[in-house]
Amino acid sequence: MPRKICVVVTARPSYSRIRSALHAIRAHPDLELQLIVAASALLERYGSACDVIERDGFKIDRRVYMVMEGENLITSAKSVGFGLAEMATVFDDLRPDIVITIADRFETMATAVASSYMHIPLAHVQGGEITGSIDEKVRHAVTKLADYHLVASDQAAVRVVRMGEVEERVFVTGCPSIDLALDFDREPVNFEELFEIHGGVGARLDLAEPYIVVMQHPVTTEYARARQDVEETLEAILECGIPALWFWPNVDAGSDGTSRGIRAFRERHDLPHVHFFKNLPPETFLRVLDGSCGIVGNSSVAIRECEALGIPAVNIGNRQAGRDRGANVVDIDYDRAAIVAAVRRLVPRRRVPSQGIYGDGKAGPRIADILARVPLSTEKRLAY
Amino acid sequence: MPRKICVVVTARPSYSRIRSALHAIRAHPDLELQLIVAASALLERYGSACDVIERDGFKIDRRVYMVMEGENLITSAKSVGFGLAEMATVFDDLRPDIVITIADRFETMATAVASSYMHIPLAHVQGGEITGSIDEKVRHAVTKLADYHLVASDQAAVRVVRMGEVEERVFVTGCPSIDLALDFDREPVNFEELFEIHGGVGARLDLAEPYIVVMQHPVTTEYARARQDVEETLEAILECGIPALWFWPNVDAGSDGTSRGIRAFRERHDLPHVHFFKNLPPETFLRVLDGSCGIVGNSSVAIRECEALGIPAVNIGNRQAGRDRGANVVDIDYDRAAIVAAVRRLVPRRRVPSQGIYGDGKAGPRIADILARVPLSTEKRLAY
Amino acid sequence: MPRKICVVVTARPSYSRIRSALHAIRAHPDLELQLIVAASALLERYGSACDVIERDGFKIDRRVYMVMEGENLITSAKSVGFGLAEMATVFDDLRPDIVITIADRFETMATAVASSYMHIPLAHVQGGEITGSIDEKVRHAVTKLADYHLVASDQAAVRVVRMGEVEERVFVTGCPSIDLALDFDREPVNFEELFEIHGGVGARLDLAEPYIVVMQHPVTTEYARARQDVEETLEAILECGIPALWFWPNVDAGSDGTSRGIRAFRERHDLPHVHFFKNLPPETFLRVLDGSCGIVGNSSVAIRECEALGIPAVNIGNRQAGRDRGANVVDIDYDRAAIVAAVRRLVPRRRVPSQGIYGDGKAGPRIADILARVPLSTEKRLAY
Amino acid sequence: MPRKICVVVTARPSYSRIRSALHAIRAHPDLELQLIVAASALLERYGSACDVIERDGFKIDRRVYMVMEGENLITSAKSVGFGLAEMATVFDDLRPDIVITIADRFETMATAVASSYMHIPLAHVQGGEITGSIDEKVRHAVTKLADYHLVASDQAAVRVVRMGEVEERVFVTGCPSIDLALDFDREPVNFEELFEIHGGVGARLDLAEPYIVVMQHPVTTEYARARQDVEETLEAILECGIPALWFWPNVDAGSDGTSRGIRAFRERHDLPHVHFFKNLPPETFLRVLDGSCGIVGNSSVAIRECEALGIPAVNIGNRQAGRDRGANVVDIDYDRAAIVAAVRRLVPRRRVPSQGIYGDGKAGPRIADILARVPLSTEKRLAY
Repeated sequence: MPRKICVVVTARPSYSRIRSALHAIRAHPDLELQLIVAASALLERYGSACDVIERDGFKIDRRVYMVMEGENLITSAKSVGFGLAEMATVFDDLRPDIVITIADRFETMATAVASSYMHIPLAHVQGGEITGSIDEKVRHAVTKLADYHLVASDQAAVRVVRMGEVEERVFVTGCPSIDLALDFDREPVNFEELFEIHGGVGARLDLAEPYIVVMQHPVTTEYARARQDVEETLEAILECGIPALWFWPNVDAGSDGTSRGIRAFRERHDLPHVHFFKNLPPETFLRVLDGSCGIVGNSSVAIRECEALGIPAVNIGNRQAGRDRGANVVDIDYDRAAIVAAVRRLVPRRRVPSQGIYGDGKAGPRIADILARVPLSTEKRLAY
Repeated sequence: MPRKICVVVTARPSYSRIRSALHAIRAHPDLELQLIVAASALLERYGSACDVIERDGFKIDRRVYMVMEGENLITSAKSVGFGLAEMATVFDDLRPDIVITIADRFETMATAVASSYMHIPLAHVQGGEITGSIDEKVRHAVTKLADYHLVASDQAAVRVVRMGEVEERVFVTGCPSIDLALDFDREPVNFEELFEIHGGVGARLDLAEPYIVVMQHPVTTEYARARQDVEETLEAILECGIPALWFWPNVDAGSDGTSRGIRAFRERHDLPHVHFFKNLPPETFLRVLDGSCGIVGNSSVAIRECEALGIPAVNIGNRQAGRDRGANVVDIDYDRAAIVAAVRRLVPRRRVPSQGIYGDGKAGPRIADILARVPLSTEKRLAY
Repeated sequence: MPRKICVVVTARPSYSRIRSALHAIRAHPDLELQLIVAASALLERYGSACDVIERDGFKIDRRVYMVMEGENLITSAKSVGFGLAEMATVFDDLRPDIVITIADRFETMATAVASSYMHIPLAHVQGGEITGSIDEKVRHAVTKLADYHLVASDQAAVRVVRMGEVEERVFVTGCPSIDLALDFDREPVNFEELFEIHGGVGARLDLAEPYIVVMQHPVTTEYARARQDVEETLEAILECGIPALWFWPNVDAGSDGTSRGIRAFRERHDLPHVHFFKNLPPETFLRVLDGSCGIVGNSSVAIRECEALGIPAVNIGNRQAGRDRGANVVDIDYDRAAIVAAVRRLVPRRRVPSQGIYGDGKAGPRIADILARVPLSTEKRLAY
Repeated sequence: MPRKICVVVTARPSYSRIRSALHAIRAHPDLELQLIVAASALLERYGSACDVIERDGFKIDRRVYMVMEGENLITSAKSVGFGLAEMATVFDDLRPDIVITIADRFETMATAVASSYMHIPLAHVQGGEITGSIDEKVRHAVTKLADYHLVASDQAAVRVVRMGEVEERVFVTGCPSIDLALDFDREPVNFEELFEIHGGVGARLDLAEPYIVVMQHPVTTEYARARQDVEETLEAILECGIPALWFWPNVDAGSDGTSRGIRAFRERHDLPHVHFFKNLPPETFLRVLDGSCGIVGNSSVAIRECEALGIPAVNIGNRQAGRDRGANVVDIDYDRAAIVAAVRRLVPRRRVPSQGIYGDGKAGPRIADILARVPLSTEKRLAY
């Protein structure tokens, strides 16, 4: 009997991070894929990742609604609680041999706690990284609950082992999102089609011109500043005048500040060279990114995918602090003038050689192989 | 304004572990105590710790029912989920400056996740210990969520720091349960009164004779074996014929096996020298323990309190594996003959000098002092 | 495609009430049975109805744990809330054409609200009856949420229509529990086997002698009196000395009082002629009942099944007030002397002719036929 | 000791409906007001009624987040479930003598079930009305759970009694929202200030010209049509060219359709004479309404408040079907041409004499008086 591998996807970016592994698990003769889609991945406001997943040909086994509305710290905690409670029933129903949880979003805790308490072996993808903020607490707590660690880089592996995990359970696979980032159809995007199909709001740009991509998320532990921060970026983008495709933030406590900041700014200002998307299918997004002069904001895409692709990045603020980074990244503060200057230097379009920090493009199959052969066990003990 | 210190008590044994700290917090001029009683601490089946707490003169600020019935792995996970969701509301209401969570029971995860996600500084009492089983995953995951670590022993502190916590946030306080264990009225128990007041079932023993105390809990990750294990101990206690006071297990996934094992055994056998208690007030329990020849079973009381008191202990099975232990402990397997032999060696009553492994009896005031002066912050980052 | 009929069973007695309909639905060519087992029907403490259901050959499609422990009014409300939340997911998963909810236990509200809000047509079995207590509020509220009413008696139909339901949606089917009550193997019980197989506690009686059956449940709205009431019955049963098989109460807010009353009484008194069962398989129970001189307590079995079977009943207190009743029932108060006198009159064994008040034994097939042909709709409006 | 009257407000419109009663309860010497604000009343997306309530000088005793995001039928059910579970804790904490629930929104079921199960007398405001849709099921189910009925009209009282409620517990108070509608400062609105202070999006109109108010909510049981319906209205408003203030819909399963319909329409069309508000403070809203030529859409405001104020109303579709209505209302279908014609007839501004169908403006004090003197009881039984 094949091992049942249950992957829980709670957000659009988590899907992108795991997609190549999903393909590899499904294709592996000794594995059977079970797919749970939950939280913001089910919500239209965050791009209905569930629809993308189905369009990609995956069967969704269960859907778990768990986002308690309010976008504040109370409702984040409540969402995880209710998600955890329901995930228990779903796991009992699906009886997986291994559960996979991805990275460090607050909802991963629901997956991790439910599977740990139900004595289902838990594999954690992307542990051992450093970022600060509540994500870091979540990520390392999941490490302590997980039975297998599928980490992106050598440095991450070292940290996981130092935290007391036994070496035989720590695997450097590279990050599956890099698989995706390196394996897409590099044909240029037809921008007229892009706007036609994927909608969004704002100007319909002429993207034969040099353009940039912007992604800015709220920083969870600095709730009150989210709005002020995004306004600084908006002012800078307005000022430098380079055509920009801006991607809407994910759900998160604090998203309110960022999202509302953007909405309010749009009401007050004319932004003739900015187009806003909720999100795009992963491959389309990569083609758009690949065609751009660079990425601006505080997304991990700048640090990870763009490192692999050699795309220059202007990383603003401390959201990515502590993440290992390549030569493609320039770090600056939320300072309008500094942002304007850094963004202007992205033109004309150029590329920076990758150092392969987050993977070599084969993480997915590597993960599937590991899952097929690791001994199944939930017994663990501090290694020291 | 005094700092508001919110302590969440989810079970009778957790209350014993924190009681001296509760007194010290309440007495501290710069602190205000907030007390949440939750989970099995509210349930009669587990000894209504809430009533004990009120009799001890503490005001309970909030009660959170959260035990989903079923006593299996699914309902453990669901209990934590629902508890977490409600704890968020309660924290929002009480607005504590610091939340304290105790040890490693599965419900502590509800407290730890809720306070972390709500950016309330979290202090963890009794981190850094090693036990195996799901408790160990929970304990170390809580360490990664906690902002302050109030640990029992030097060895625990070393482990917490190795896991990546910064040294300035790790404090060796000793365990507050030892405060209690060393500070009670050592007058002998009046056993007639004891049976009269505290009821229980089974024989009313003449405890002027040498007697032992038995406490056996289910081992969560070995669910199916709980019943078989307890029967081995029951057979041994039946065979060796020494008067015994047996204390009922706590709620836990698996408690069913142990509890039902005991109930079934009682129906089938005459146990003329065993009396069963649900629980006793902490001080009465210590006096009973102090008068005994020793403790038998798999409770941490044998390892911790009995070390401080110098009471010999027969520790059965692997539930306490990995815990630092003193000269008072003899470890054996679930083997009837071995248990009988070890238990017989407990008579006549003798004492073993303490090495102070789990504390010097002043943990409570030490904890209060630390809480009054640590800088309030929820920012943390792996120390390496 | 057959219509998917989803039946939600939340307790052992509800299962007995619906069993014949389950068989008929499963056997009907135009219907497909979906079975959800939830709440106390999953719990060993209440007789693990789920095991009985599987032994009866039914496949359980989903299990929903929802009993929040505490057995008080707060936890009843919480149980329904969490059950409702999870039932929504389960209904979304199973996509039934009609949901069936049974009678008036507090958990039925979870089923009824979830299906109403999800626009799934809801059929209610046993509406229109009168009992007082919280059950009555629940029952009539479910009537106002239900789209089809499958009632037990003409009088119940009249009441449902008077409440504003349209006549075409009200069907007098008789009660399916009567189907069961009239269709079992009437061979006498082998009592040695009975005690051997089904355990229970207390005396192993010689039931060749005349014996009685006792069932006493807590009365929800009179919480504090539950214990006092059951003691009055216990004293009476002790005094009259007739062998008795006593069946443990169901879960309910207040069950504590009754259950604890019984436990405490057993510790204090010798009850040489009383045997306690948690429960028996439905058919075995009926054979035991059929062999008895009569039933004592406050169970609806006395009013319903015993009317159909002609078994004399001593109904104590007001729990069954307002229920239509036949000539088999004698009503008395919680008064020891009155109970003793009434119980003594049950000997020697005799039978009372049934008036068919609660059905003719064909409710199950009648219900299946109706479900196969009613128009599917969730639109309704007060008929006046 | 004054009676503690606990009012649960779950949405902005519910607050408007109860406000005058809140004032009267607070002012009554024998009553103490407890205020719980929950569900969409806490959410910015629906106008943060909680802020309005505090600005009005009320103290909020507890906040209950309970809206599960998704805006579909599953999440409506889940929201009620989680709300119910938490409301139980809040009621246990506040220990009210009477709980008040308002009207028929889906969340009222959480309040009604929690208080019923906890044996707290429940008063229901606005029972006995007829509307069709899921609201009607909810409203009548709440009637069957409620102990006191504070209804708006004679006809409603007749219906509640016919449903089996005892007459002594049914009180015709008029609707408290009419108190508000008749008691506000009729000074004309300063529109420049209005736009300045309350923001909103769209054209800043010159409202010295005749203008209309538009309010259109999704119709819950016709989920898929919500978007199509709102587009019909939008086209009509665009065509007739009369300046319009359009108020955003409430949360509801289906709100998505309406809200998204509006958003999409705004992106595609220029609407030079429409301004969109999320909401306004109740009094400001009434002044705006009072100055208008009439109201268009499917809001109950058209049927109730506008009847009392004599404001002409164009009521579209069947959302208000079955509601008693005055001479001010014209009913039409979702037909663009018909809407255009009816809306044009609203100009020039005129008034229609009120028949007092929904109250005389003194409902609030009447409700407070009743709550102060009704016997406290949760015992009820069908009156026939």
